[in-house]
Amino acid sequence: MSVRAGIVVTGTEVLTGRVSDRNGPWLSDQLLELGVDVIAIAVVGDRPEDILTALRFLASEGVALVVTSGGLGPTADDLTAAVVGRFQGREMVLDEALEGRIREILRPLMSRWPDLDPEAVLVSNRKQAVIPEGAEILEPVGTAPGLVVAPADGVDGPTVVVLPGPPRELQPMWRTALAESPALRAALRDAVEYRRSMLRLFGIPESEIAATLRAAAQAGIELEPLEITTCLRRGEVEVVVRYEPGDADIYEELAAFVRDRHAGTLFSDDGTTVDEQVFALLSRARETIAVAESCTGGLLAARLTERAGASEILRGGLVVYSDEAKIALAGVDPALIAAHGAVSEEVAVALADGARRQLEADVGVGVTGIAGPGGGSDEKPVGLVWLSVSHRDGRRLTRSVTLPGARADVRDRSTTVAMHLVRRLLLSGSG
Amino acid sequence: MSVRAGIVVTGTEVLTGRVSDRNGPWLSDQLLELGVDVIAIAVVGDRPEDILTALRFLASEGVALVVTSGGLGPTADDLTAAVVGRFQGREMVLDEALEGRIREILRPLMSRWPDLDPEAVLVSNRKQAVIPEGAEILEPVGTAPGLVVAPADGVDGPTVVVLPGPPRELQPMWRTALAESPALRAALRDAVEYRRSMLRLFGIPESEIAATLRAAAQAGIELEPLEITTCLRRGEVEVVVRYEPGDADIYEELAAFVRDRHAGTLFSDDGTTVDEQVFALLSRARETIAVAESCTGGLLAARLTERAGASEILRGGLVVYSDEAKIALAGVDPALIAAHGAVSEEVAVALADGARRQLEADVGVGVTGIAGPGGGSDEKPVGLVWLSVSHRDGRRLTRSVTLPGARADVRDRSTTVAMHLVRRLLLSGSG
Repeated sequence: MSVRAGIVVTGTEVLTGRVSDRNGPWLSDQLLELGVDVIAIAVVGDRPEDILTALRFLASEGVALVVTSGGLGPTADDLTAAVVGRFQGREMVLDEALEGRIREILRPLMSRWPDLDPEAVLVSNRKQAVIPEGAEILEPVGTAPGLVVAPADGVDGPTVVVLPGPPRELQPMWRTALAESPALRAALRDAVEYRRSMLRLFGIPESEIAATLRAAAQAGIELEPLEITTCLRRGEVEVVVRYEPGDADIYEELAAFVRDRHAGTLFSDDGTTVDEQVFALLSRARETIAVAESCTGGLLAARLTERAGASEILRGGLVVYSDEAKIALAGVDPALIAAHGAVSEEVAVALADGARRQLEADVGVGVTGIAGPGGGSDEKPVGLVWLSVSHRDGRRLTRSVTLPGARADVRDRSTTVAMHLVRRLLLSGSG
Repeated sequence: MSVRAGIVVTGTEVLTGRVSDRNGPWLSDQLLELGVDVIAIAVVGDRPEDILTALRFLASEGVALVVTSGGLGPTADDLTAAVVGRFQGREMVLDEALEGRIREILRPLMSRWPDLDPEAVLVSNRKQAVIPEGAEILEPVGTAPGLVVAPADGVDGPTVVVLPGPPRELQPMWRTALAESPALRAALRDAVEYRRSMLRLFGIPESEIAATLRAAAQAGIELEPLEITTCLRRGEVEVVVRYEPGDADIYEELAAFVRDRHAGTLFSDDGTTVDEQVFALLSRARETIAVAESCTGGLLAARLTERAGASEILRGGLVVYSDEAKIALAGVDPALIAAHGAVSEEVAVALADGARRQLEADVGVGVTGIAGPGGGSDEKPVGLVWLSVSHRDGRRLTRSVTLPGARADVRDRSTTVAMHLVRRLLLSGSG
């Protein structure tokens, strides 16, 4: 039997969407990797009764482990440690050694804010050293310590790992807990090993994958032991399959079936993203890329610089949102804009060539479209985007798409289409 | 007594973080606006037992309303409608009229994918017309209908609104439900009106706000009726206050207290963001901006083009990730880079001036930094970012910051610092 766990994300700012939660999904993914079955992420506000309710709900489902994030800060609405202490039947006590260590952490930070009242800061942060009696302490990465709190003697229920909200604190502290906490290790003792594999496709609707899975079953592939989920993500269809190591053969059968049926649209069966593939293709060929973008306004360049080392492949980018910038920066002929409009095949081509030439790159990308909400017409509706990719050697791919959704969706999706066009152009040269 | 509600977000892809959930927070915010108290967002995978567990948990907490998102698609792992039907004690039935309407929706979509087997698509989508008997139907915006499902006669519990996962479908369908569904209106009948106000500060730590709230209480402001939450968001501190209309005076007292104590760092007390303020300041002065960015790689330009109408204020952007691009595009003197390094005050200034001149803008912004994870040194650590903003009239602000966090955090936070520098420069001219 597999180990089950739940996650409680606290914070009124997360519950109401002013901050988007990255911790729940990250922890869930980490637990899945460990073979733990996550039954739910409960996002609750800062009210102690709601945090307690979430803990009780998960406990009533029989989970062996609960991980919480958030509510360890210095303000009065940061209450997670106290609620978990109560839930586990443990008194709250001031740990003076911990208080001293937090004071040492605060000292250099306070020098950055010379106007602060130092006493107020120390009072605010003393509260972070009040912990459930007998809890294991995870040393602070920021200023807040984490906790691993087993139930008190005579209390039945899950072990609770209490982590701070900022991801850059939570992530290393979770790893420390895994490596060092006896209570966490005890809770995870019975976890079963799982594997996860992923197939990524671009250019087909999700319903087609549903049909393929039915066809695979009809063709005699025994899908039952595989846990298959499909989803649309940034314009791509992802098929994620989770299985025990003994069922790897079945997964391979399914992967071969999908590969065969979707040869033109399956672009990744090894977990790589299109971004990684474009990076690798350019690196391997020692080629560089440059972009000129209108509707995406810098998002494509930002995507190409997401990983370190981008200067190896990216010569630079031109954000040419206005017609003047298209002409001045990318060298687009004003007559082309006048004749065909800024959102046109001709201008996309001129942007790709302009970026490539102005920046002396091997590959140029041009993107021009109508991201909305205004600016659309019958002939050129909101969502229409023209993209062109051109290579120094004369190869070129140009296409238009009409993307659904709001302005942010159209902009984001356009960068995905651009990445796939670049990939196809680069592969067409290596074949 | 206020109406309480819960939200269930389904989808293994959301639970494991491959897709980040926007629906839970959006719905929560909508419900708060209506005066409904959201006790939790439960994120669960596609397993029917986990969806059912989440529904039962919320029902056991006595909520009057549950809103679900996701699991209405054509694939076999889309099970929400069936689970909700079972939960409400209603049989699942095929609604043939609905099936016909979905078929009409699919017809034009299918013509976009000429290689599809049309029969497979229709089978996949027929399932979307099987609904709990007696449910109210919300017409599809995409291909999936939504549902409002009251408990069957003799069943006690919340009304459940079932919505599809894609935000561009969910959001209009929620508004339709609010306007037209008798069952939803009945569930919301007792909601209390609330107001929400927000104070935004930049350049102080969150603990300082905690101290200010304590000081406000000591100064005799009766904070009890206010629900106050503070959070750090993209480098800013947000203080959100929720209160019943009768307590507006108390909120105003608190706001005045904060305004007085934090005059230098409070930048918004009317809900506006720094982005909106920069946009308004530039528009009002009929001035334009141009950016040259290195470590942010396009993110600042992308942020300036997030809203429609950006071409009014943004002349264009230069992504100058490599030294060659800094020299060629922004006209940075290579000797400056050689003497001071690419991440330096001098190069930030040269980038700001270069962007302004090359693009003939009124205001130029230069950003250069070490986003990491590599590339840091003792003298110039990872997270060090130099920013400069210069105006055609000679005003200039230049500063360095050392930002915590991973590469993505440093890049994102840098754009926030840049926006605040631009705001200050623009205000310094109008004062």
